[in-house]
Amino acid sequence: MNFSMIRYIVGLVVLFEGIFLSLPSLVGVIYQEEQCLSFAVIMLICFLLGILSTRRKPEKTFFYAKEGFITVAASWIVLSFFGALPFVLNGDIPFMPDALFETVSGFTTTGASILSDVEVLAKCSLFWRSFTHWIGGMGVIVFILAILPLTGGQNLHLMRAESPGPSVGKLVPKLKKTSMILYGIYCFMTLVEVVLLLLGGQSLFEALLISFGTAGTGGFSFLNSGFAEYTPYIQYVVTIFMIMFGVNFNVYYFMLIKKFKDAFCYEELRYYLFVIAAAVAMITYNIRGLFPTIEAAFRHAFFQVGSIITTTGFASNNFNDWPEFSKTVLVLLMFIGACAGSTGGGIKISRIILMLKTVKKELLFYVHPRNVRKIKLNGRVVEHEVQRSVNIFFITYCVILITSTALIALDNYDFITNFTAVVATLNNIGPGLELVGPTGNFGMFSVFSKFVLIFDMLAGRLELFPMLVLLSPYTWKGLKFRR
Amino acid sequence: MNFSMIRYIVGLVVLFEGIFLSLPSLVGVIYQEEQCLSFAVIMLICFLLGILSTRRKPEKTFFYAKEGFITVAASWIVLSFFGALPFVLNGDIPFMPDALFETVSGFTTTGASILSDVEVLAKCSLFWRSFTHWIGGMGVIVFILAILPLTGGQNLHLMRAESPGPSVGKLVPKLKKTSMILYGIYCFMTLVEVVLLLLGGQSLFEALLISFGTAGTGGFSFLNSGFAEYTPYIQYVVTIFMIMFGVNFNVYYFMLIKKFKDAFCYEELRYYLFVIAAAVAMITYNIRGLFPTIEAAFRHAFFQVGSIITTTGFASNNFNDWPEFSKTVLVLLMFIGACAGSTGGGIKISRIILMLKTVKKELLFYVHPRNVRKIKLNGRVVEHEVQRSVNIFFITYCVILITSTALIALDNYDFITNFTAVVATLNNIGPGLELVGPTGNFGMFSVFSKFVLIFDMLAGRLELFPMLVLLSPYTWKGLKFRR
Repeated sequence: MNFSMIRYIVGLVVLFEGIFLSLPSLVGVIYQEEQCLSFAVIMLICFLLGILSTRRKPEKTFFYAKEGFITVAASWIVLSFFGALPFVLNGDIPFMPDALFETVSGFTTTGASILSDVEVLAKCSLFWRSFTHWIGGMGVIVFILAILPLTGGQNLHLMRAESPGPSVGKLVPKLKKTSMILYGIYCFMTLVEVVLLLLGGQSLFEALLISFGTAGTGGFSFLNSGFAEYTPYIQYVVTIFMIMFGVNFNVYYFMLIKKFKDAFCYEELRYYLFVIAAAVAMITYNIRGLFPTIEAAFRHAFFQVGSIITTTGFASNNFNDWPEFSKTVLVLLMFIGACAGSTGGGIKISRIILMLKTVKKELLFYVHPRNVRKIKLNGRVVEHEVQRSVNIFFITYCVILITSTALIALDNYDFITNFTAVVATLNNIGPGLELVGPTGNFGMFSVFSKFVLIFDMLAGRLELFPMLVLLSPYTWKGLKFRR
Repeated sequence: MNFSMIRYIVGLVVLFEGIFLSLPSLVGVIYQEEQCLSFAVIMLICFLLGILSTRRKPEKTFFYAKEGFITVAASWIVLSFFGALPFVLNGDIPFMPDALFETVSGFTTTGASILSDVEVLAKCSLFWRSFTHWIGGMGVIVFILAILPLTGGQNLHLMRAESPGPSVGKLVPKLKKTSMILYGIYCFMTLVEVVLLLLGGQSLFEALLISFGTAGTGGFSFLNSGFAEYTPYIQYVVTIFMIMFGVNFNVYYFMLIKKFKDAFCYEELRYYLFVIAAAVAMITYNIRGLFPTIEAAFRHAFFQVGSIITTTGFASNNFNDWPEFSKTVLVLLMFIGACAGSTGGGIKISRIILMLKTVKKELLFYVHPRNVRKIKLNGRVVEHEVQRSVNIFFITYCVILITSTALIALDNYDFITNFTAVVATLNNIGPGLELVGPTGNFGMFSVFSKFVLIFDMLAGRLELFPMLVLLSPYTWKGLKFRR
């Protein structure tokens, strides 16, 4: 195990967290809040620890997939740990497991909160909460890869472990440039949203926080009422941007280099838009009686479908009170998730398509045993290995889902609360139904359950295996013999 | 497509249904019920149709897997159709979709009922209801294969399509003898249970009905109170027999030919017993406060775990009122199901083991990429093809589960009712939770939802693909060109 390389990269992550923490400190200074001191203190500690652990460069930069997984999982845990400390220090979330839950929920772009009242928080804390979404959305290691010239061809392992989707590729031959392009698109789209929200009359502070949450498909709100009291204009802008951030970023890259045909022939994109349209139509029809106009019903259905399928988790309405059919559709959307290569979570549209195609292929095989056709996605043949990994991903996903539901059932809340709490954290959505619905929160769970859900959020964000490899006894067994 | 062969075998099934229907007719004569007339009439019709369609033997007996699937799926639909007619004729279940639901529920050994009061039914109707469990448990085509000398080596396709488990093999080289051995064990164990129940003071009628339900892992009860008012002795006997009928029948065969080592080294059996023991322990502890003695808590936990994991669905207590943790454990057991090669439904222990081993293998692959080990089950290497089919089975299972839940959500009942109704029918269990709990029934669903659940029961019993192949447009597309 290349421990010095792991140390070096985790150190870099801590160093960058220090840089990120300077922003909430600055916000606190602007609004003259004393709570910003805690951010400044942790910022300095991060700088110190980061510099100390990156001073000595590792001799060997060689990296197996295992080490990539461990590095990424460890980075996210360390990132969350230091990110949680300011909340504890400044008293906004004094209990460490709660602060950790909130920060993990932020970085993993889940948006599940343990807070019953967010409006009492200091502005610097609110800023940091939403900013973690933005960092976590595209990924901190992708960020580092975009900036630093890390040598060694094995860095793709790192990017693979952090990026969502069944097959992560490079847009351009150079990994550094790929990361830069991704972050460039990400920043630009965030900026456009901020401008549009400013035009809608939001303050800069609010426009930034909403845009961070949308871009990362996070879902933290800084109002207890969520998006219920915003104007239709803001609701539409946020809906459209949520859906845009749920699209595979490759599509934007192809548009950028003017390969429009490549961009629009993405099968995943078509299915994604089709699922959204179908779900919005069904829910609008189902909830039309709850709202004064069809437009309002459509707007809330559109907002909620966009919010859930992209795993953002904003709420413009308490959908826990919607009819059962609409709630069932929303729960199904929770599983589907956004496109691969977007900032959204969930199983991902491309995996769902591949699984459906596998079932279809099996059926066809029984009907015409001699006529074996290969499975294609986006016009290209899907390699056997990718198919296999999608199947195993899904099985592992179900194993984690079932185990977690059983574990948090020990708290003895109702089945829907438990089940949707796990679904909402494992898919990085945020709100579930019943007690964890849009007007509820995750505060009532026991510390044990909170740690189960923290694991689910991290496992969901990093696509299961990095967390499993980090925690698996196989990884660590026999290591002492080799050192 | 070998239509004449399909016609011939479906004809045989109808002929045998006539023979089966003679039993409820006889019961009606003994109890001097006029309702028995309807059974006699349908019996004669089945004889007539059966003889007509089997008079001409097919010239070609050659059979593809596709035809095996279609034959078995069609046989079960025809079987259920004729089995439902007596209920409609004698007025016990006058509405045809309801009668069909009840009969499919019987043959597929589900035990989900649309009746709110079963005690008003005629004794011949009650007998037929439970007897369908016994026929469906081991399978009607396996029964025919055991009796008739069907020529052609392709009959294994039929047996595969009807028998549960990921890989169906022959116990002995001859298929006819394999079927005979299976039915021999089945009859013998049913007989032992009948004797034990008679010793416990039950009447012969009751002992037979309970044993039919246990042997087929069905779950129809002839008392509205289920098993709540029976003596502890009866409850223990039924529990132990439910668990015994959930064991792979190969184990009994090995014991029969005195290969005890082979019988007990079955990995699946060990996991099965372990899961039962663990679930009983957890639930006993969780519900201890609800009962006057620990023995009563243990007995009801034991009964319910045995009933759910074997997908029988008998209830000795209204588990819908148990604490959430116990209910969650029961819901998880619903998915697991019994052993492959038993009369139980569900995903099956061996598939669960294989899936967990796949996840473990994937983890190990990341940790030691060069050390690839093969997956073993019961001491033997599992072929790649079996693993793949298990993965695809699971994905198909989830697709059906999700689609069905969404479809019956249109009735606008609560999510737990919808979800557990589908789980309980697709896994051939019977009762779910809330409105379809042990004291509820499936009568309130719309006709559309009932047909969705009828499909789920048949798909679950026949392990998904026969029903999918029968209903798939690919199967029938282009057929007209070839004839």
